[in-house]
Amino acid sequence: MQRRILMTAAPIASAALAAPAVAQSLPPLRWRMTSAFPRNLDLTYGAGEFFCRAVGEITEGRFTITQFPAGEIVGAFQAMDAVQQGSVEAAYSGGLFYVGKDPAFALSAAVPFMMNPRQQHAWMWQAGGNAMLNEFFKRFNVHAVPCGQTGNQWGGWFRREIRTADDLRGLKMRVAGVAGNVMQRVGVVPQQIPPGDIYPALERGVIDAVEYIGPYDDEKLGLNRVARFYYYPGWGEGGTVFHAFFNLDHWNALPRAYKAAVEVASQAATLNMMAAYDARNPEAIMRLVANGTQLRGFSSELVDTLYRSALDFYAETSAQNAAFKEILDSQVAFRDRNYQYHQVADFQFDAMMLRLRRR
Amino acid sequence: MQRRILMTAAPIASAALAAPAVAQSLPPLRWRMTSAFPRNLDLTYGAGEFFCRAVGEITEGRFTITQFPAGEIVGAFQAMDAVQQGSVEAAYSGGLFYVGKDPAFALSAAVPFMMNPRQQHAWMWQAGGNAMLNEFFKRFNVHAVPCGQTGNQWGGWFRREIRTADDLRGLKMRVAGVAGNVMQRVGVVPQQIPPGDIYPALERGVIDAVEYIGPYDDEKLGLNRVARFYYYPGWGEGGTVFHAFFNLDHWNALPRAYKAAVEVASQAATLNMMAAYDARNPEAIMRLVANGTQLRGFSSELVDTLYRSALDFYAETSAQNAAFKEILDSQVAFRDRNYQYHQVADFQFDAMMLRLRRR
Repeated sequence: MQRRILMTAAPIASAALAAPAVAQSLPPLRWRMTSAFPRNLDLTYGAGEFFCRAVGEITEGRFTITQFPAGEIVGAFQAMDAVQQGSVEAAYSGGLFYVGKDPAFALSAAVPFMMNPRQQHAWMWQAGGNAMLNEFFKRFNVHAVPCGQTGNQWGGWFRREIRTADDLRGLKMRVAGVAGNVMQRVGVVPQQIPPGDIYPALERGVIDAVEYIGPYDDEKLGLNRVARFYYYPGWGEGGTVFHAFFNLDHWNALPRAYKAAVEVASQAATLNMMAAYDARNPEAIMRLVANGTQLRGFSSELVDTLYRSALDFYAETSAQNAAFKEILDSQVAFRDRNYQYHQVADFQFDAMMLRLRRR
Repeated sequence: MQRRILMTAAPIASAALAAPAVAQSLPPLRWRMTSAFPRNLDLTYGAGEFFCRAVGEITEGRFTITQFPAGEIVGAFQAMDAVQQGSVEAAYSGGLFYVGKDPAFALSAAVPFMMNPRQQHAWMWQAGGNAMLNEFFKRFNVHAVPCGQTGNQWGGWFRREIRTADDLRGLKMRVAGVAGNVMQRVGVVPQQIPPGDIYPALERGVIDAVEYIGPYDDEKLGLNRVARFYYYPGWGEGGTVFHAFFNLDHWNALPRAYKAAVEVASQAATLNMMAAYDARNPEAIMRLVANGTQLRGFSSELVDTLYRSALDFYAETSAQNAAFKEILDSQVAFRDRNYQYHQVADFQFDAMMLRLRRR
């Protein structure tokens, strides 16, 4: 039996806090955010939209950030310059697009054979990763807030089967970030191409192979129409974090309440983007396979070759670049400790469920 | 060379939006949230604190929700009654603690052999799960907002090794939610005990075995001091979602901007709690093992027995309870489709990383 307690039906106005003085003094602000993504890539562009909408809602329209598709203000690969210079206040993009400035940019998004999505979030938000990254970004007059997660990306689309490293040799492949450096060491000619320009490049025959994100986006871009073999696992990006990048002077001048809104909205956007991919990729892969895409796993032999190339790249880059080394070492230590746990925890649950499924 | 563009150093006040009239008219509100957790369980109680702090910050102190530890207003298992009756506006708890009201409550948190954490988030936020759950909660005058994720929980602490179902027979075990019903079918005497009362019950010999959450919390509760064998995988809770439960009348009366603050803050709290567990569980398991805890995996034979018990429970409960059947069917369909994808995507990445680690 439940004891019925007198119910206070209306919000308890009598116990109300007075609105603090600061609420009235917050300046209305209108910022522009140049996106690395075209509008039709609705999950990545959409995460930017979700973030802007959330910031607007929770500040009751006083702090509005408006996203512009890649190319309307500047192109995807010019977004970081625009933020550094302050010609826009913000960019929605992935750090791995700017490895030309410094390879350490990629460590904010994804580097090969590193962390899975949950490890990335834990390292960034709960193990000092965000502070470490922003210490680095400061040099570029940028403050970065993680804002989106794609999940494990795929290994790429190829026109013929890839059995060994020999089959990769000489391929012109669109591949983002440090994965390009790793593939170069096994003879690939890596191409950095912004998201919106990938399909035309494939169609014109400028590239032979491509990795972008995963089934849902890759189908949207039409990559299955020009290459038949789709490879897993995405060794190059265990998960990929996108960021809202802010001009540091603008960021520093933000009222505390607006910074809080940005932090909370960006975490919500990250969770939502991951959930959106997890809801849509399974349906996309079924459509792709029904339409003739052939799924293939990279051989252990090829994975081992790529892994050795990655370790070589990390050693060489760390020897020349102290920031890269510091951030990489922190990620490697976190990843190793976490996988030691993961293998007797969540991985076991998934392995058990997959075993029961196969029965 | 970068073209230097005239920088607008200060926030662009001239382009400002006028603050909408609604901003001034929002009522100051002060709500109470009774927690299912004691203060010392700092990650679960802490997720409630994170949520309250975020709501307060983004509403600039006008909407404050204050969490009270289990027992200060009401006990963990009375929290839902208090919300239903409106004697508090909100509770921070897990739906699986209220299976006595209706087994469908557990479907909001975790049921055996069901979804992993990412699947839960995707189902809830991107596949209609939240709407379906709230259609059910409406009957209890409750609105539920997901607000926290523990990750895969562990299978429990036992004083001796568990090799077959025979070893479970007659054990008095603290086990939450539907996992208790499943274990009852193999001869366990399940005990529903609130988090704060578990350790005393073990110490007094009232229970022989216990599952709570995972290494970090279980170590805090001292469970390793009374049982030596720690089992994985946590077949009962692939991931567990906690919720902020609101009295429906209070929820419906909330201004839209406050609801938006709650939604965004709860998503951020979910991401953060998952990240906190992923950062702390790996260190906790190393401490536990160093202090003598023996890790064991449940045998496939025992898992199969428990799985059959779960399927029987689902069939029987679905035959009597339309809401349970509708929500369960939706989860099963989502889980199966997602695992079909997962096995060639993120699971492959983790399997690859674990293989490379072992070399």
